[in-house]
Amino acid sequence: MLSIERLKKNLTEIGSIGQKNGEGVTRLGFSPEYAQAAELVRLRMEQAGLRAWIDGVGNVIGEKKGRLGRGTIWTGSHLDTVKNGGLFDGCLGVAAALEVACRLQETERELDQDLRVVAFQAEEGGAWGGTFGSRALMGMLSEDDPAVTETLRRYGLTPDAVRNAQMDVPTNSRFLELHIEQGGTLEAAGCPIGVVTGIVGINRYLVTTTGQSNHAGTTSMARRRDAFTATAKLAVEIDALARERKDNLVATIGELALTPNMSNVIPGRVEAALDVRHLEPETIRHFMTQVEAATARIASTSGVEIAIETFVEKPGTACDGHIIRTMKSICEENGVSHLELPSGAGHDACALAARMPVAMLFVPSKGGMSHCPEEDTAWENTQTGVDVLWETILRLDKEEG
Amino acid sequence: MLSIERLKKNLTEIGSIGQKNGEGVTRLGFSPEYAQAAELVRLRMEQAGLRAWIDGVGNVIGEKKGRLGRGTIWTGSHLDTVKNGGLFDGCLGVAAALEVACRLQETERELDQDLRVVAFQAEEGGAWGGTFGSRALMGMLSEDDPAVTETLRRYGLTPDAVRNAQMDVPTNSRFLELHIEQGGTLEAAGCPIGVVTGIVGINRYLVTTTGQSNHAGTTSMARRRDAFTATAKLAVEIDALARERKDNLVATIGELALTPNMSNVIPGRVEAALDVRHLEPETIRHFMTQVEAATARIASTSGVEIAIETFVEKPGTACDGHIIRTMKSICEENGVSHLELPSGAGHDACALAARMPVAMLFVPSKGGMSHCPEEDTAWENTQTGVDVLWETILRLDKEEG
Repeated sequence: MLSIERLKKNLTEIGSIGQKNGEGVTRLGFSPEYAQAAELVRLRMEQAGLRAWIDGVGNVIGEKKGRLGRGTIWTGSHLDTVKNGGLFDGCLGVAAALEVACRLQETERELDQDLRVVAFQAEEGGAWGGTFGSRALMGMLSEDDPAVTETLRRYGLTPDAVRNAQMDVPTNSRFLELHIEQGGTLEAAGCPIGVVTGIVGINRYLVTTTGQSNHAGTTSMARRRDAFTATAKLAVEIDALARERKDNLVATIGELALTPNMSNVIPGRVEAALDVRHLEPETIRHFMTQVEAATARIASTSGVEIAIETFVEKPGTACDGHIIRTMKSICEENGVSHLELPSGAGHDACALAARMPVAMLFVPSKGGMSHCPEEDTAWENTQTGVDVLWETILRLDKEEG
Repeated sequence: MLSIERLKKNLTEIGSIGQKNGEGVTRLGFSPEYAQAAELVRLRMEQAGLRAWIDGVGNVIGEKKGRLGRGTIWTGSHLDTVKNGGLFDGCLGVAAALEVACRLQETERELDQDLRVVAFQAEEGGAWGGTFGSRALMGMLSEDDPAVTETLRRYGLTPDAVRNAQMDVPTNSRFLELHIEQGGTLEAAGCPIGVVTGIVGINRYLVTTTGQSNHAGTTSMARRRDAFTATAKLAVEIDALARERKDNLVATIGELALTPNMSNVIPGRVEAALDVRHLEPETIRHFMTQVEAATARIASTSGVEIAIETFVEKPGTACDGHIIRTMKSICEENGVSHLELPSGAGHDACALAARMPVAMLFVPSKGGMSHCPEEDTAWENTQTGVDVLWETILRLDKEEG
């Protein structure tokens, strides 16, 4: 069977579980649809010659011992989706890892190193905070975390199941993940491959603007201390500052609450969530000094107070420089146009990075869309992604541990 | 008794009904506290020599026939408050009208024209939409209005009670209302008296900005169609346009909803309520052409669509030019510094204006505050207000019908 046909068949068969007409795919973590998909993936892993099992939290793991065993190459992605998601997010990396096993079987090729193919449980956000399965595998879930204990309780899991899900991490382990970009950069650049430099850090700030609630009719423009207008000024400046940098930093105000939020009352208080992402903490810090300068200026000219408080500070994850260079060489030697770019979204690779070097490949998302039924990637690009993943594994496999 | 002491006593006695320590006054329309205050006002009217009654919807009316009866002077204000309101809003106009009756009695003076002292039910906003009592008195409540029928049902009123509350409006009727400013213009100008030019018209617009919801991490700044940033740009321009005019127009965005309103998603849609007030509809129209020009520019440069839809269009109410001139003459002759200004808030005078010429006097609100426990007006200013009201009534009384 042609590799592209097999990839299409596996991806469509597995990825369609949870699909409803016109509503995309809903295969939430811990759902019956997830369990059905996990069982299918386990079966396909076995058929591809892997020793395969589903662990106590729902991760699917397939293993094939290498001839020399001087290292372990891990590859895969997550098997769950968001509500009303698409076919590719997560499932592409699972199908690609399966395709690697199929090619090994088909060509009767043995790797020197061990291969671990993984399909992770509950990567998407939820009560558990995302990347549940990969964090369990890396032994990163704390039983003291209320989000973890609540998830165990809700889904009938025992602390033992979580403890037992932790896997050994042999020396010279490396993790590779193929994923859709979920942005429009590759499409705009006309590149089928993105070599991921790292997964950006996320800082979130609560921006609280305090003015004076007052009557929208009787308070002259000159006497207002309008918390919303001041916040709007700040939002416009934040957007301009982020654009001017041209260093891939992104800044978003996505959540906002006005008090009292009545059409006939000047807002006395506005709370806004500011989300700032970049690979380098230093870049985020520099940006925030610019934001703070704008804040001070706007507060003093608008007669309001603006307080900025950090409430999320999630450091970035750098991808392994050696694997990045290997991937780039493969692209260059094969005439595959590619782009180095950071990932703006979190991935299972972040969890695995706690214990081993990681690297990621992106393929373009049509229209930059993801987490929606319209999510799509051209099949020739998925094929190119799998080819670069395959070649990377073959080269890493030949390296001394 | 000194007029100022009597005014203080009446205002404090009536206005304190519904007062709780530290929570201001809560004397909502149709509440037991309102009913208690209404009965006290009726009693004080009688003691001041008026024929007084409470009508079927809860308005208190006191009448004194004049010697010649060639006209009718109406004066008063509302007796209800907002939740956690203050002593002065509404009640000052009631106490002032009562003081007029007391002075007539004390000086054994008879007016040529009839006098009607009124204390209105449910002027403040509620399910009934405000100015319930004054609209009932003017026969303006429609039984087809669901807000009216719901109010009748909830408070056990019959359609007959509403119908019977409609009062005759004799020819040559005029209505005078003393009220606190509820803004800070008089205080800033150091004027004890505001002669109201009219009650502004209120237009409200639903401003809907449609961009594209997208991932806050994976969508580069250049590729965003951020509905909130575009709305923020518009809000900043609206504020600047209103300030530049210097014609008393006020514009407020007080209510806002982001979709999906999540910190990690670029807003795809924002709905904002824009409240614009001015006495002249033409001025509002001109302002909105400026806003529409800004909207078109921002929409095209931000890659979003912005739609503006009118959902409230309440015309302004002009005060009577002759009474305004009379009030100004009185101030000038008595060395009372005064200011002509529009009212940015609605008042019972709007309802009465449907059937007769109206005029209003404002006294300063300390710190521009109202609808809160801190609401305050210096007693010497309330006294000046009552004096100008009294003198206006005496002069209008002498005019031929």
